[in-house]
Amino acid sequence: MNGLWWRCLSLCIFIGTSIGAPASEPSSDDNYWAQRSRFLIEESQVSLGGRMHFEYGERAANNILMAAKEEEVDEGFVDPSSFLPARNFLTVVDEVRGSSTFQIIEKMPKGAALHIHDTALTSADFVFENITFRDDLYVCRPADGSFQFRFRRVADKKVTCASSEGWELLADLRANSSIKDEVDTRIRQAMTMIVPDPAKAYPNVNVAWIAFQNIFITIEPMLTYLPVYEDYYYQGLYELYDDNVLYLELRSTLPTLYDLDGNQYGPIEVARLYKETTERFVKNHPDFIGTRLIYAPLRNANDRQMDDYLTTFAALRKEFPDFVIGFDLVGQEEKGEPLARFVDKLRAVSPSIRLFLHAGETNWNGLSTDENLIDAILLNATRIGHGYALLKHPRVLELAVEREVAIEVNPISNQVLTLVGDMRNHPASFLFARDYPVVLSADDPGLWGARGLSYDFYEAFVGIMSRSADIRALKQLALNSIKYSAMPDEEKVRAYEIWTEKWAKFITDMTYEYSIVSRSKRSCEVDFVPT
Amino acid sequence: MNGLWWRCLSLCIFIGTSIGAPASEPSSDDNYWAQRSRFLIEESQVSLGGRMHFEYGERAANNILMAAKEEEVDEGFVDPSSFLPARNFLTVVDEVRGSSTFQIIEKMPKGAALHIHDTALTSADFVFENITFRDDLYVCRPADGSFQFRFRRVADKKVTCASSEGWELLADLRANSSIKDEVDTRIRQAMTMIVPDPAKAYPNVNVAWIAFQNIFITIEPMLTYLPVYEDYYYQGLYELYDDNVLYLELRSTLPTLYDLDGNQYGPIEVARLYKETTERFVKNHPDFIGTRLIYAPLRNANDRQMDDYLTTFAALRKEFPDFVIGFDLVGQEEKGEPLARFVDKLRAVSPSIRLFLHAGETNWNGLSTDENLIDAILLNATRIGHGYALLKHPRVLELAVEREVAIEVNPISNQVLTLVGDMRNHPASFLFARDYPVVLSADDPGLWGARGLSYDFYEAFVGIMSRSADIRALKQLALNSIKYSAMPDEEKVRAYEIWTEKWAKFITDMTYEYSIVSRSKRSCEVDFVPT
Repeated sequence: MNGLWWRCLSLCIFIGTSIGAPASEPSSDDNYWAQRSRFLIEESQVSLGGRMHFEYGERAANNILMAAKEEEVDEGFVDPSSFLPARNFLTVVDEVRGSSTFQIIEKMPKGAALHIHDTALTSADFVFENITFRDDLYVCRPADGSFQFRFRRVADKKVTCASSEGWELLADLRANSSIKDEVDTRIRQAMTMIVPDPAKAYPNVNVAWIAFQNIFITIEPMLTYLPVYEDYYYQGLYELYDDNVLYLELRSTLPTLYDLDGNQYGPIEVARLYKETTERFVKNHPDFIGTRLIYAPLRNANDRQMDDYLTTFAALRKEFPDFVIGFDLVGQEEKGEPLARFVDKLRAVSPSIRLFLHAGETNWNGLSTDENLIDAILLNATRIGHGYALLKHPRVLELAVEREVAIEVNPISNQVLTLVGDMRNHPASFLFARDYPVVLSADDPGLWGARGLSYDFYEAFVGIMSRSADIRALKQLALNSIKYSAMPDEEKVRAYEIWTEKWAKFITDMTYEYSIVSRSKRSCEVDFVPT
Repeated sequence: MNGLWWRCLSLCIFIGTSIGAPASEPSSDDNYWAQRSRFLIEESQVSLGGRMHFEYGERAANNILMAAKEEEVDEGFVDPSSFLPARNFLTVVDEVRGSSTFQIIEKMPKGAALHIHDTALTSADFVFENITFRDDLYVCRPADGSFQFRFRRVADKKVTCASSEGWELLADLRANSSIKDEVDTRIRQAMTMIVPDPAKAYPNVNVAWIAFQNIFITIEPMLTYLPVYEDYYYQGLYELYDDNVLYLELRSTLPTLYDLDGNQYGPIEVARLYKETTERFVKNHPDFIGTRLIYAPLRNANDRQMDDYLTTFAALRKEFPDFVIGFDLVGQEEKGEPLARFVDKLRAVSPSIRLFLHAGETNWNGLSTDENLIDAILLNATRIGHGYALLKHPRVLELAVEREVAIEVNPISNQVLTLVGDMRNHPASFLFARDYPVVLSADDPGLWGARGLSYDFYEAFVGIMSRSADIRALKQLALNSIKYSAMPDEEKVRAYEIWTEKWAKFITDMTYEYSIVSRSKRSCEVDFVPT
C-alpha cells in the first residue's frame, strides 16, 4: 500500500500544476474568458518548454520566429495545399528550404543528434559529387536497372556481375557522352528515396522498406572502401556541425571495410576509425564535442549471430570503454526478429550493457512490432528508438515518463517509411503537449535529401507541435538532447556551456539581422513615399 | 490542498490497477517472462472492455470472432496491402463486406447511434432506387456536370436553371434510352463521395469538404420534399434497425420542407414529422427504442442567425421537451465560426440547454478548430462530436475523462474527410487503450456506401484497437452507447434489457452457426477421406 501511495504521489507531483490548479474548473462562477485564458496558459505550461522563462533577448527573437511560423501555419489553415508538413517530405524538400521558419531553425544550435545511422548520415550530394568521381570505382549494371559498386584496382572477376558488360570503370562510362547523363541520373536516383509520387512508389511499409534497404545495399559496397568510409563519416560530421549540431551518437552495424590490396577491416578497426576520425574532426572544430557509438547490427539474426554480436560488443567495450556506449538492433521490425526472441541473451549480459533499442517503429497495434516496446522498457532501455506506437501502450508510456526513458522521434523517417502521411497526425504531438522526454533526430537524413537535424526540427515545430509552441520548445529540444545523451556528466556540462554560448549568439544574431532587414525595409518605404 | 488530494485520489482510483500493481516493475528480480505476461494483462485490463469477465457463452463466441479478426490482422502484418483499414474506405467498401469479422459485427447488437446527420442517414442506394424514381421529380443539368433536383407538379420557371434544356422531368430523361444510363450513372456519382482514387480527388480537407457539401446541396432539394423526407427518415431508421442498432440521436439542421402545393414546413413541423415517424416506426418495430433530436444548424452563422437558432431551439424544447434534447453547430470547423464566437450567447441560455458539440474535427493544433475543444469542455458539453484533436489538448482530455464527457468517434468519416489515411493512426487507439469514454458512430453513412454502424465498428475493431481487443471491447462500445445517450434512466434500463436479450441471442447464434459450419466441414472432410 505504501508503494501505491508513493507512486500515486510521484504521479501527482509529475502531473504537477495540471492537477493542482482548480482555477479552470468550468463549474466555477468565474468569468468565462479568464477561465479560458488560464486553460490555454495551463496547456502551454505543461507542454515542451512551456515552463521556461524567456531569457535575455529571447522574447524579441521569439517574435521574429513566431511571425514566420504563424504566417506559414495560418496560410496552411486557409489553403491546406500550401502546408508543407501535410505533404510527403520527398516532394517538398526544396520548398522547406525556402521557408523562413526553416531558415531560422537552420541557424539554431540544436544540441545533439542521438539517432542517426552510419551509412545514411551524409548527404547523397556528397556521395554523388565526391565519392562517385573517385578513381578505381567500378560499376556493374544488371538488366533490372540496379547498380553494384566496388572500388578495385582492376575489374574484379571473382565477384559475379549479372550484366553482359561485366564490371565497368565508372569513369569510362562517364567518358561516353551518349550515356553519361542517363547513368548519372540513374545513379543519383539509386541513392535516395526521392521519387515524384511517393504514395504510388511506396504504397505500404513493406514496399517502402524494400526500396530503403536497396539503397543501403547499393551504396554500402562503395562506402565501405576504407578511405571513402573515413571521408564519408568526416563529411557527415561536418554536415551536422554546419547544421549547428554539436555531438552525435551514431548507430553503426560496423560493416567490414576493404581496401585495394584485398585487406579487410573488422568491427574493432571500424570503431577505431570512427574514434580517430572523430578526434581529427574535433581537433579541427574544437566546438564540436564528439561522437559516441551504438553498436547496432541487424535484428534479422539467429541465436548464433546474436551470440556473435554480443561477443563483438564485449570486445568493443573492452577496447573503447568510453567511445562505444551501447547496443541496439536495426532493420524493419515487421520482418526482423522481435526483441522477445533475444531477451534471455540480453539479460544475461545486463546491466553491463546499455540498450538504445529501436521499438514500436510501426503502425501495428498488439503485434510483435509494437510489443517490442514492452521488452524495451522491461529490459531497462536507456532510450527508445522511434517509439511510434507508444500511445497504444499505456503502461510503457507511463514507465517511460516515470523513468525518463527518452523517446527518439524521427518525423521525416516515419513519413518516408509510410507510418504517417500528414505530420499533424504524428503521435509525437501528444508527447510534445505534455513535455514528455523526447529527443528529435534525423535517422537517415542522407537518404531523403535532408542534412543534419534542421529538417526534422522544422517538421516537428511547424507540423507536429501546437501553433503556439515557440522558441522555448526548440530550446527544450536542444537541452533534452544533451540531457538524454550518454555523455558523462562533465562532458554534458561542457556541451551545455558551448551550446549556451552559441544560443546567445543565435538570439543576438537573429534580432540584429532582423533589425537590419526591417531598417532597410523602412528606408525603402521612405524612398518610395510619393513626394 | 484538500481539493488537490481529493483529485489526486480520484485519479489514482481511476487509473486503478495500473498504479496499484508494482508487480511489473522491471527492477524486480521476478522472472522476466512472468513480468512480461503481467504487463500485457495489465494493459489489456485498462483497455476498453478489459475489466469485463466473459459471461455465459461469450468465450466460445469470442474464439470464433477472434479467429476471424486475427486471421485478417496477421495476413495484413505479412502483406500490408491486404489490410483494409489501412486503405481508404471509399475504395474497399465491397471488400469490407466480404470480411468474416465484418459479417459477425453486422449481426452484433450495437446499441445506440449517437452521432448521425439527417440527410446522410440513409443509403444512397435507397435514394437512387426509390426516391429518384418517384413521380414529379424534375432535374436541371447545368453544363458544369452538377444536378439540381426538385419535386414539382410542372416545370418550375421561377427557379432558375442554368441549362438550355431548363427543368426536365427525370422520368422523361430516363425514357430516352440513348442517355438514360449516363444520366443514372452520373446521378449515382453525385450522391456519394465514392471515387476510384480518393487521394487524388480529395487531396486535402478543404477539397474534401467542398465535395462533401456539394452532395448535401445536390440531394437536399430532393429529400426535403415532405413525403420523401418522411420515407427517407423511416428507411434510415430501418437501416439502423436492420444493422442491429436500437436507438438514434439524430443531428438535424431541420431544413424547410415543401410539398407540391407550394406549402413550406418549418422547424417545429419538421421535428413533429421526426417524432411521429419515429413513433410509427417503433410501433412497427417494438424492439427499437426510438430517436431523439439534436438541433444542429450551420456553424457558419452571424450573431442574428445564432439568436434565431436559439429562439428556434427554445420553441422546439417547449413543444417537444422529451424529444429535442440538445444543440450543436455543424459544418467544416476551419471555415465556420469557432465556438468562442458564440460562447456568450450559449452561456446566456445555459444550463437549460444541453450541448452535443462538434469540436476538434481537425488535424490542426493550436488553431480555432482544435481550440473548439476547450470551449466545448468549458461550456459543459454533454458529449463531444469527433474530438479528433483531443490528444493535443491535455487539459481537455483530462476533464473529459474525469467528467465522463463521451467522445463521439466516427472513424470512416474522419478518413473520407482526409483527417487520417491509415486507420491505425486514428487517435482513438489511445482512447481505446485506456477505456476512456467513447462512443462509436457513423456520421454520414449514406454518403460513402456504409449502412448503420457496422462499418465503423469494423474499422475500429480491426484497424484502430489492439489485435488483442476482443468481443468485450465491442460489448463495451454497445454499453457505452446506452450509458452516454440522453435517454432518461428508465429508458436506459429498457434499452439495456432489450440489448441484453439480443446480445444473448447473438452469442448463442454465433456459436450455434459455427458448430453447424464446423460440423458440416467435418462431415465434408470425412466424405473426402480417401478410402
